[in-house]
Amino acid sequence: MRIAVLGTGSVGRAIAGRTAELGHQVTIGTRDVAAVRAGEQTAWLEQHPEVGLATLPEAADAAELVVNATNGSGSLPALTAAGAPNLAGKVLLDIANPLDFTAGFPPTLSVLNTDSLAERIQREFPQTRVVKSLNTLTAELMVDPRQLAEGEHSVFVSGNDAEAKRIVTRLLISFGHTDVIDLGDLSTARGTEMLLPLWLRLYGRLDSAIFNIKIVR
Amino acid sequence: MRIAVLGTGSVGRAIAGRTAELGHQVTIGTRDVAAVRAGEQTAWLEQHPEVGLATLPEAADAAELVVNATNGSGSLPALTAAGAPNLAGKVLLDIANPLDFTAGFPPTLSVLNTDSLAERIQREFPQTRVVKSLNTLTAELMVDPRQLAEGEHSVFVSGNDAEAKRIVTRLLISFGHTDVIDLGDLSTARGTEMLLPLWLRLYGRLDSAIFNIKIVR
Repeated sequence: MRIAVLGTGSVGRAIAGRTAELGHQVTIGTRDVAAVRAGEQTAWLEQHPEVGLATLPEAADAAELVVNATNGSGSLPALTAAGAPNLAGKVLLDIANPLDFTAGFPPTLSVLNTDSLAERIQREFPQTRVVKSLNTLTAELMVDPRQLAEGEHSVFVSGNDAEAKRIVTRLLISFGHTDVIDLGDLSTARGTEMLLPLWLRLYGRLDSAIFNIKIVR
Repeated sequence: MRIAVLGTGSVGRAIAGRTAELGHQVTIGTRDVAAVRAGEQTAWLEQHPEVGLATLPEAADAAELVVNATNGSGSLPALTAAGAPNLAGKVLLDIANPLDFTAGFPPTLSVLNTDSLAERIQREFPQTRVVKSLNTLTAELMVDPRQLAEGEHSVFVSGNDAEAKRIVTRLLISFGHTDVIDLGDLSTARGTEMLLPLWLRLYGRLDSAIFNIKIVR
């Protein structure tokens, strides 16, 4: 697949590196290509010559699957910059969490309970097929789940478009995920985004981000 | 221990039955003893003659450990009826979730993000040692976790009083829990209460309440 990864943080780099390794044609989309080339991502980009770098609209336009790997607070602006026409008809894998760090740690959620970031994105881009997933575990485990307990833990997908969820599920399985649970429509993303407060406390308690939830049933 | 269980619903009956079976001296506290004796709980009470029934203040007064097994919306009124002096110094195991069903299913949470029901209870009863636990799984599994995957799943405790958490943890282990994770102070209950939206969607998806989360690490 032609994949655009929006965001140059740890999640964006993990997804871009792994999908390129799996043979996909991958471009990272960013606001300022020159700044990223000259910045702290330089070494990573040099180590991953197979991953392209482009502006947000260029990356989105060329892709079949777009990954939202931006911060939650930057997601709507980044997607708006990518451009609704460039996102129309595409599958958008939304990994962002609406964390608000303005009052320090632990962060709160800026949207929750009766709404979610995923639903906000879907309302703003009605022609895009939004699938929420991977937002409940750390970047390293998103793309290489088998490094922990041979992959014996769970990941969730939420979305209104069954085919889009199948495409994302196949990608997750190719990463090594063994238990992909389809929660239902996109409103179920409220549940996975609202898992973050527990995730963050466990992160503090376990002193490591290499953990995940398994739904034992 | 002398245990008071406030609430006659499925959680209250499960906790009362199990703790009595384990040899504790158990009294269920309720608003209207006569109504409960004459109501749908009659058969259960007849099957559990070892479990006492008393008013909320009587039950709380006689107990060392008080269990809040009321509905989230009824918790503060029930505890107020039990009486702050009767709860002072006691360990209060709070199992309630602040679910708001006024807009139908799925319910929303009436307190979250920057606060929790557990913290509200603690603020209202500062002399009581509130421990949040067991609110992340169904009643049957709370008291008999080994019926699922030989108990290989997790449960959490949150609270400001280390000794109170130890007392609750020992009780959980006596129920059969194998992985009791101390998340930290009572504000960490926000995380477990906010797990409910995901729990409810999984319940719908799995078509069974006999599931639980395991923290794989």
